[in-house]
Amino acid sequence: MLYSVIPAGGSGTRLWPLSRAGHPKFLHPLTGSDRSLLQATVDRLGPLSPADRTYVVTGVSHAVAVSRQLPDVPEANILVEPSQRDSCAAIGLAAAVIAHRDPGAIMGVFSADHLIGDEARFVEVIREAMAAASAGYLATLGITPTRPEVGFGYLKIGTLVHGAARQVEEFREKPAHALAVQYTESGEYLWNAGMFVFQVETFLAELDRQKPELHAGIQAIAAAWDTPDRDAVLADVWPGLEKISIDYAVMEGAAAAGRVVTVPGDFPWSDVGDFHALGESLPCDDAGNLILGADRANVLTRDVKDSVIVSSTGRVVAAIGVDNLVIVDTPDALMVVPRGRAQEVKQIVDELKARGEDRYV
Amino acid sequence: MLYSVIPAGGSGTRLWPLSRAGHPKFLHPLTGSDRSLLQATVDRLGPLSPADRTYVVTGVSHAVAVSRQLPDVPEANILVEPSQRDSCAAIGLAAAVIAHRDPGAIMGVFSADHLIGDEARFVEVIREAMAAASAGYLATLGITPTRPEVGFGYLKIGTLVHGAARQVEEFREKPAHALAVQYTESGEYLWNAGMFVFQVETFLAELDRQKPELHAGIQAIAAAWDTPDRDAVLADVWPGLEKISIDYAVMEGAAAAGRVVTVPGDFPWSDVGDFHALGESLPCDDAGNLILGADRANVLTRDVKDSVIVSSTGRVVAAIGVDNLVIVDTPDALMVVPRGRAQEVKQIVDELKARGEDRYV
Repeated sequence: MLYSVIPAGGSGTRLWPLSRAGHPKFLHPLTGSDRSLLQATVDRLGPLSPADRTYVVTGVSHAVAVSRQLPDVPEANILVEPSQRDSCAAIGLAAAVIAHRDPGAIMGVFSADHLIGDEARFVEVIREAMAAASAGYLATLGITPTRPEVGFGYLKIGTLVHGAARQVEEFREKPAHALAVQYTESGEYLWNAGMFVFQVETFLAELDRQKPELHAGIQAIAAAWDTPDRDAVLADVWPGLEKISIDYAVMEGAAAAGRVVTVPGDFPWSDVGDFHALGESLPCDDAGNLILGADRANVLTRDVKDSVIVSSTGRVVAAIGVDNLVIVDTPDALMVVPRGRAQEVKQIVDELKARGEDRYV
Repeated sequence: MLYSVIPAGGSGTRLWPLSRAGHPKFLHPLTGSDRSLLQATVDRLGPLSPADRTYVVTGVSHAVAVSRQLPDVPEANILVEPSQRDSCAAIGLAAAVIAHRDPGAIMGVFSADHLIGDEARFVEVIREAMAAASAGYLATLGITPTRPEVGFGYLKIGTLVHGAARQVEEFREKPAHALAVQYTESGEYLWNAGMFVFQVETFLAELDRQKPELHAGIQAIAAAWDTPDRDAVLADVWPGLEKISIDYAVMEGAAAAGRVVTVPGDFPWSDVGDFHALGESLPCDDAGNLILGADRANVLTRDVKDSVIVSSTGRVVAAIGVDNLVIVDTPDALMVVPRGRAQEVKQIVDELKARGEDRYV
């Protein structure tokens, strides 16, 4: 059995105005059903992890919403961080708490806000990663690139080393466009989707080797987690933990030491980076439209094609004669943008921040 | 001095969702200022008619809103129809009430929901029409066509007969496109804008000649208007008045008898038929955008061109990278349509009616 750990944080400004700092994208039903991305993530992991082996690491801002969206996840498995200390502290805390409770555990790390198209294949790939983890590797899921995306990191892959798992030779930062084209065409690179599978003890040993202070802090907190001292130790130690990503702190160094493998994730995958990506990832109607939100019945379209319409207001939304357009309707903000420019929504958020209109952000 | 009569009715479904049956377009600030179309109409007529010579004929649904928007118009000058009996009854009632109060009056009929670009020239044209009216003609304002519009009626014009006024040889119905092109290119046709100037006694005599029953009914009501019998006579007579337009009832027959003239209205004019027309009629910003509504400051545009954005909600409206688009944001309905298809909004209204969603119409 697998322990599934889902870090649930971030704001997703490119999904504004639906996604807000106070209500980020993983809490929204961007799945084509009434389930939020977070709930769909837990559902998808069901065949691998029952609820008592499902963990969420989240912040104080989202603890209430997460708890209510996932009533079946035990209270003890929802780890609330006092402040954001980046992904290594979050994942390290979960690994250390799980290690205290079950030292031989294998855990997977899964984003709360991704969409995955072929869930049966996803489960198979994770099982292959679990096999590599059992053999002592830090396994990542590498997604087969479908376009020269400059917004992702890449994994340079090498030979098969265990089952379907290949060596990861190197982690590569977000590339410029020309390099991204080269990566995509070469077949030697996969997208780093931020999903990992490892034995908790393997990970903690590697963390100790590369970042001993961070490891010591996390272990101190984990040792106190299930005791009356949790709050005191958290207050004492957490603020001093190094803010660093798991890639920088552990995975890149482990790859250099030959300890990282990847199982190619050849299932449809999206990080739902913007509304255009959302439209690419979910089933559309015959006209190519994706209509989402609590009040789909109130969306009237007339000769509308290949558009993404999201309404959460209950208002009538009427669209006529548009194509490849994104329309997002929320109680206090409305946004209209062509799909091809959906990433520019981030600039609107920046402008609102600059104007001091934080209530809309 | 002129008596100005403003029939204020109609729903303007092509300006949905801003314009509704319960709150039609003349009540909305579609003028580039905070004044409604109705208020702007009264303002424009100020040099011709002081408030005590300004009349509005409206229905029970709009009497309250009209009264509040026009606090300076005397109560006695706001004529509330018990039900809609088309334009001849409405205008005839005003003519007859004014004739009882001032038998020698000259009155003009002006739409409540038109935009006029050169108000000084407009006043000059009306003064020319008043001169023709003094000479016993029924004068209309004919608008010089700027495009082969199939949505309007046309006036076939003849020779000069009085000052700047030309004979109207014939009223022509809304033409097919080819005929509209021919009309526009010939220079012999003007748009019938539904604006008239005449002596009240001249109009009533012509009504009596062509529609004696309608004339008798209207006269009976007018005779009782300023007496305690008004309600009783209205209840008795109004429901039986013929429902017919002023063009059919009076103007076409009067034209055939050589009694109708027109003064060409060579000022910018729009009937604000749809949001595209609105964008053509009001001053735009440097990018060609027209941004209207109570909360213009909350409209954020980024690389938006030649678009019409109307917001009445106070919400943030963010538009990115669109051109020639109409976005209309109201508390319970949102509409997005390319400017070139703005007339199709009517079909959305029809669909809402067909679905029984009358609250949105």
